[in-house]
Amino acid sequence: MKTQIDHAREGGTTPEMEAVAADENIGTEQLRRGVESGCVVICRNPGHEGAKPLAVGSGLRVKVNANFGTSQDSPDEDLEMRKLEVAVAMGADAVMDLSTGGDLRRMRHKVLRHSPVAVGTVPIYQTATELVQAGKSITEMDPDQLFDTIEEQGEEGVDFITVHCGVTRKAIDALERHPRILDVVSRGGAFLVEWIMANERDNPLYDQFDRLLEIAKRYDMVLSLGDGFRPGALADASDRSQIQELITLGELQAEALKAGVQVIIEGPGHVPMHQIEANVRMEKDLCNGAPFYVLGPLVTDVAPGYDHITSAIGGAIAASAGADFLCYVTPAEHLRLPDVEDVRTGVVAARIAAHAADIARGYPGAAEWDAEISRRRKEFDWKGMLELAIDSEKAGAIREQLLSHQDDVCSMCGEFCSIRHMKAAREHKKEVKG
Amino acid sequence: MKTQIDHAREGGTTPEMEAVAADENIGTEQLRRGVESGCVVICRNPGHEGAKPLAVGSGLRVKVNANFGTSQDSPDEDLEMRKLEVAVAMGADAVMDLSTGGDLRRMRHKVLRHSPVAVGTVPIYQTATELVQAGKSITEMDPDQLFDTIEEQGEEGVDFITVHCGVTRKAIDALERHPRILDVVSRGGAFLVEWIMANERDNPLYDQFDRLLEIAKRYDMVLSLGDGFRPGALADASDRSQIQELITLGELQAEALKAGVQVIIEGPGHVPMHQIEANVRMEKDLCNGAPFYVLGPLVTDVAPGYDHITSAIGGAIAASAGADFLCYVTPAEHLRLPDVEDVRTGVVAARIAAHAADIARGYPGAAEWDAEISRRRKEFDWKGMLELAIDSEKAGAIREQLLSHQDDVCSMCGEFCSIRHMKAAREHKKEVKG
Repeated sequence: MKTQIDHAREGGTTPEMEAVAADENIGTEQLRRGVESGCVVICRNPGHEGAKPLAVGSGLRVKVNANFGTSQDSPDEDLEMRKLEVAVAMGADAVMDLSTGGDLRRMRHKVLRHSPVAVGTVPIYQTATELVQAGKSITEMDPDQLFDTIEEQGEEGVDFITVHCGVTRKAIDALERHPRILDVVSRGGAFLVEWIMANERDNPLYDQFDRLLEIAKRYDMVLSLGDGFRPGALADASDRSQIQELITLGELQAEALKAGVQVIIEGPGHVPMHQIEANVRMEKDLCNGAPFYVLGPLVTDVAPGYDHITSAIGGAIAASAGADFLCYVTPAEHLRLPDVEDVRTGVVAARIAAHAADIARGYPGAAEWDAEISRRRKEFDWKGMLELAIDSEKAGAIREQLLSHQDDVCSMCGEFCSIRHMKAAREHKKEVKG
Repeated sequence: MKTQIDHAREGGTTPEMEAVAADENIGTEQLRRGVESGCVVICRNPGHEGAKPLAVGSGLRVKVNANFGTSQDSPDEDLEMRKLEVAVAMGADAVMDLSTGGDLRRMRHKVLRHSPVAVGTVPIYQTATELVQAGKSITEMDPDQLFDTIEEQGEEGVDFITVHCGVTRKAIDALERHPRILDVVSRGGAFLVEWIMANERDNPLYDQFDRLLEIAKRYDMVLSLGDGFRPGALADASDRSQIQELITLGELQAEALKAGVQVIIEGPGHVPMHQIEANVRMEKDLCNGAPFYVLGPLVTDVAPGYDHITSAIGGAIAASAGADFLCYVTPAEHLRLPDVEDVRTGVVAARIAAHAADIARGYPGAAEWDAEISRRRKEFDWKGMLELAIDSEKAGAIREQLLSHQDDVCSMCGEFCSIRHMKAAREHKKEVKG
């Protein structure tokens, strides 16, 4: 089929481009050029009815993704659907169904049917789950099975898929020559490393990249090129295997663009603050300006229980340096699967990072939200302030616990409200002048 | 008395310098030079027995302060003492008693007696509270009363005090010519603006700065020059009144240094990400390298309920650019006074920001903490990992909610643990090679 890139290349626009341009307050022609160059992608599988197109890339608002999904320990589909609901309610721009337990197809169909935002998946999770459910090892995977899964998901309407095409023998060699504390922390990446080492063959998603492109093109499904070698510890950041993989991803992005397939590049991971900007610049340079989708980055390894904060710090810095798409991280990261409340907290933390970066990037109108809530704050307009808050319900609940309810003072300071004293100061001045 | 600066100037070291040098793993001579130049301060009033000296400044670990204190609405001293306890338990390097309700002296004596870390105050809060308790207005404040309060607190052992010396008529003029959304959000700053406007006289803390220096010198009490004009909204950041005040603070810092009085400079506030580094550099330039103590900065106004996160983002960026001391912000900021749990969360969030910045600044040994916890993570050493976590109790409580307890897998991924699959991959390789 004709993809967004094909249309853009012919100088035409699509209904999706028009919707995105209107939503982002940018010109359709600017957006068209972004899509043509690969610096912007629009995730919208025509088979996914009713979903809002997800646009990520240069010049656009920074977007947020929330992951959820069943697992063997917790195959409860309803619980995961509640996570979808809260993620969307809190403002997630996309969700990824990372299910690995129970009936994966049924779960995915539910997600696709109910999600008003773009849906992504990691197809190798389905392949791996099927192997495990059949009592087999991941090393027994037949590449055809993986490609069939990808085809199936494209046909169903999945908007974007993570494919770890850069997990190659070359990158594994780099890892072996330059050991890490935590070798490979990407699940999909680890499956492929295991498969490659056991089969002594290279990654089918790399070796048969053309085949992958054909499938992706058929459904205009965006390829999110996964970072199997993303660092899982600060000490491992920006090392040879990570950068080796990034070089490969940049080469594949160029091939995909030629074939009319849209590509996002995934990025780290655990990265110390002073390396984040360099990571973003490297991605933009090595991958021809393709949108950058970062997981975190987490700026320290020492804060399990607070990794929504470590990643909000890293995500804000990454996005203000040019990253386009933030994958949320919840307080449960490294400890257990997130519950519904964790999902809520994770989405809000990532949205704070994205919005702070939108302001830093000069995204049109971003700072106006802040100015408006601050005007309400000055007027002691609590209702207006809470309505404009990024999480009105949470802010309202905290405010409800106030000991006294004086509406004409800042609740923190009571009698000693600075705003009230400034008003008084202005009155004195008027009296003196009068 | 001979202050730390006096000793440093004579080429001598003090027991406090030696304790700090040992704690920070730097040479005593390097520290002495830092104190002499004013780029490092050691907060340790000899009258505050049993407290650990607080050193802040260039080349040192980034420090964290936690505020608490009674208010008219909530005069419960025991509640505030529990906040002190949890703040110290979570690793706060200093606390500030900002009490404005009940018996302020009794409360402060308790804090000084029980705090194992440096204690700061804002003396004008006591003066203002006494006026209010006597049915008077802040505009009726006699400057002598304020100086007596400062003297009293120095004698009691307060280690550092916030004094808004830069709230001058000149800065108020700058504000009047260049209006803001939220004029003055500093409580002490607003009191002084009100007093100045009503009395048509300049700030006594500025006009009689020599008198303030004499008192501070008598107790080697560190002056934390407050930023009365810190922006309370992103739109107000880095404007004329803020910078006018900063220029004044730099001039005062130079005078204080000559007089042998140690000075910290306080900073914003609400600041968009892209202005944070410039704010830090300006402070270092305009204030002769004096330690910078920032409140936040909060990188967006729209997230009441999550301002520990907005300030962790800003604090991490500020500290990695050179800020030395982070004042915590809790989830209750802008909504109500923090409860004990909020204090805990606020301290941990600020410590995450400080530690991430220590790594970025190359503070010796900082990254080793991360490497060590990541080694435990690789070994599935849950006990070791939780022990090393910045908040072991919280991380442990989340981990306890796990559905299954397989210790040999990452709890998030279960069967699909990447670490286990990498171990398997290495086994395949050995078999093949064997």
